Amino acid sequence: MDRKAHPCGDGTWNSIMATLSDADRLVLANGLILADPARPVTVPHGRTVISGDMLAQVNVPRDDEALHGKILDCSGCLIMPGLVNAHTHGAMSLLRGVADDLPLDTWLNKYIFPAEAKHAGPDFVHLGTALSAVEMALGGITTFADGYFHMEMSARAAVEVGLRGVIAQGILDVPAPDAATPGSWLDRARAFFDGFPHDPLVHPALFCHSPYLCGPETLQRARDLARRLDALLFSHVSETRWETDEIKRRYGSRPVEHLNNLGILGKGFVAVHGVHLADKEMELLAESGTAVVHCPESNMKLASGAAPVQKLLDRGITVALGTDGPASNNNLDLFEEMRSASLMAKLISSDPEALSAGALLRTATIDAARALGMDDRIGSLAPGKLADVIVVDLDRPHLTPMYDPLSHIVYAARASDVKHVIVNGRIIVENHRIKTVDDRDIKQRARAFASALCKDLGIETDFGALLNHDRQDYV
Amino acid sequence: MDRKAHPCGDGTWNSIMATLSDADRLVLANGLILADPARPVTVPHGRTVISGDMLAQVNVPRDDEALHGKILDCSGCLIMPGLVNAHTHGAMSLLRGVADDLPLDTWLNKYIFPAEAKHAGPDFVHLGTALSAVEMALGGITTFADGYFHMEMSARAAVEVGLRGVIAQGILDVPAPDAATPGSWLDRARAFFDGFPHDPLVHPALFCHSPYLCGPETLQRARDLARRLDALLFSHVSETRWETDEIKRRYGSRPVEHLNNLGILGKGFVAVHGVHLADKEMELLAESGTAVVHCPESNMKLASGAAPVQKLLDRGITVALGTDGPASNNNLDLFEEMRSASLMAKLISSDPEALSAGALLRTATIDAARALGMDDRIGSLAPGKLADVIVVDLDRPHLTPMYDPLSHIVYAARASDVKHVIVNGRIIVENHRIKTVDDRDIKQRARAFASALCKDLGIETDFGALLNHDRQDYV
Repeated sequence: MDRKAHPCGDGTWNSIMATLSDADRLVLANGLILADPARPVTVPHGRTVISGDMLAQVNVPRDDEALHGKILDCSGCLIMPGLVNAHTHGAMSLLRGVADDLPLDTWLNKYIFPAEAKHAGPDFVHLGTALSAVEMALGGITTFADGYFHMEMSARAAVEVGLRGVIAQGILDVPAPDAATPGSWLDRARAFFDGFPHDPLVHPALFCHSPYLCGPETLQRARDLARRLDALLFSHVSETRWETDEIKRRYGSRPVEHLNNLGILGKGFVAVHGVHLADKEMELLAESGTAVVHCPESNMKLASGAAPVQKLLDRGITVALGTDGPASNNNLDLFEEMRSASLMAKLISSDPEALSAGALLRTATIDAARALGMDDRIGSLAPGKLADVIVVDLDRPHLTPMYDPLSHIVYAARASDVKHVIVNGRIIVENHRIKTVDDRDIKQRARAFASALCKDLGIETDFGALLNHDRQDYV
Repeated sequence: MDRKAHPCGDGTWNSIMATLSDADRLVLANGLILADPARPVTVPHGRTVISGDMLAQVNVPRDDEALHGKILDCSGCLIMPGLVNAHTHGAMSLLRGVADDLPLDTWLNKYIFPAEAKHAGPDFVHLGTALSAVEMALGGITTFADGYFHMEMSARAAVEVGLRGVIAQGILDVPAPDAATPGSWLDRARAFFDGFPHDPLVHPALFCHSPYLCGPETLQRARDLARRLDALLFSHVSETRWETDEIKRRYGSRPVEHLNNLGILGKGFVAVHGVHLADKEMELLAESGTAVVHCPESNMKLASGAAPVQKLLDRGITVALGTDGPASNNNLDLFEEMRSASLMAKLISSDPEALSAGALLRTATIDAARALGMDDRIGSLAPGKLADVIVVDLDRPHLTPMYDPLSHIVYAARASDVKHVIVNGRIIVENHRIKTVDDRDIKQRARAFASALCKDLGIETDFGALLNHDRQDYV
């Protein structure tokens, strides 16, 4: 059922429902529900009905809704909106853990850049993004915002796994894996939009790497292209102290001021990281309605610093949570990321009341949806919204007893507690298993890629190959 | 097979092995092994043989060891030492998430203390510790150091679940749940030692709450009793800035200096937290051979501060990792705790090389064993050591590919990746399921307790009861 083609609003929904065949109908029964993360009320749950790709009924009494169609018993579970990962580089799962505990420049120049220069072709992006999409789906992420190269392949992986994706083509003023000469990015970006798949799950966008790897002209051209195509423009902004110093040296202003001077800030622009922000930069972000993506674990692991999230929220700026890429994190787990964001904020401010569980859950759901311009369609559960729903198993020792489900989701739950995942009305994870792709095949191909990379980088022991080999033995 | 009664050392082990019946024999086959966390070398694994409660052979070639006895196929997995949680208050799982995002005094005075005053009897400790022990076992923790009251019940829970425990009876100069009048703690502690179960899994110890809730005389008497009984003495030390100021005000010196003046520091004493430490205090800890337990997530969540772990390690001080109690964390997950410790250290020092994966794994295994005086018996895998072994499933999307298993364990793995857990030669978790106790019954009793507490504290919605009720319905 195509959402846009739907003939009616909420009012006459019930009559429409009655005419639908059971094949289009999915009923979530029992359990608890946290429908709206902006109003952290959790009530006992009756029935929630999905029709096609949309939510038709949310939490109606159990006697009001006949049980026909496919039934998903959510006893012992919490039904909630799918998580939205507002920043990652999905393809980089293939480089996960290739090097850790290193200064950023060693990590980049000795490991990441050489690996990317040789390997980051379309197949790399397809395989790496598929692997990441499977990990994200199993962990309750229903939408991800991805930034890398050869991004048609990211879109393909998202559609194959069944995740919703904002798929942003990377832009650099230096040679990129899919744009060999500086300046050719513009043709590349146009071709990306022209060839983008027509699928309701994926939305094309642009990703300028940063104000230090994209000059003023590139930033402005990318902005113009994005606006013309009604697409989002992302950029890493104010990630490190070095960046702030470098932009001041080059342009005489701090990164956010520089972007403001260029006319980049505003609703369609998403600033990723925002770690080192002066007060006047926060004012500019607030005035312009620019959203910020917070990636606490990456910022800690690379020792970049702590973003002033509470201050951003206090100014009314939309803050979304992101995992960053799996090469710098090293997993794609928004449950862990919520917890880390809260712990870091409390530590930095010496205030145990900073960044409450409720605030954190919003950054990973409705606020992340708002940052991506999709809060009218995803990020909470309401009739007429798209059916992106997760079901979290609460019947676990580490979630027992339970005084407040919201506290558990942020402070105690794990990605592995996610039992069912529904995206666009389709069950893509059921009983902790991915249903859309052959995850075993994806993992084996990822290990085969790693074997080749080990040889290139002079990594002596190929542990993945040992595992693949191991599986062929009998005890 | 009693370890102490064993007639021989390593040299003649093979001949002894041949005479053992298969019932006593467990063989781990295939997979990878990380036997010694102090030497982070991971090699392909052949066979590891457990005989009774001990490791008989570690990683011998697969052709050298006949496959008889019980066989555990570890294909696709990493075999490693069980994790050692050097600090928790197991019983407090029953108060998990009862209140969060609050200043410490509100949290304690409005919620925790009233709940404990009314409920923290023997049954509370038995049930709460059992629930925590199940959570810890499922997450790969094979030894825990516990501090609370009615600690015979903690010992009982440890033995029932099959975990190794250092069970420390709490001491306060104010009325405690099991010592109503100040000063009666001494009789209580003596009775605790007299009645302590004779079981190789559990070791009695003492836990002075802190230098601010235990006066000089109490600290010294507890030290004398512990030394006479060859038991460890624990205390929270230098957890908050308030504590440092208060101890200086009362005694004219900082907490560690104060303990040094009283003759408390040394090998048998374990200082928990160590957040606010002056250089001279670190020198005193180093000179005296006092171990420190680091609880990063609790310290962050309560906004206590960041312990100077790298500085402690640089001075040769033994640092062990602990989760702290589940009421202030809110889970008992040492994988997450390793990751948080590393991220916090990198953030605080602005150094991405601070607290490497290898250093972190040691704090959760061999160094934690050393802090508890047990590094000759647990914390690494070697012939003649006790068989506390975990098997971690590496065949997961979020652990794929794998360039370095050590990096994955610290930066990407989850407690839920633990597949098998062996303590003292006994399989207590197999294929992610606890085998020793009825975890469903424990969870239901924990929810019933929470129902009573909700009434007492005026918590309106009893979510746990909704879940318990839910399970009786049919869709």
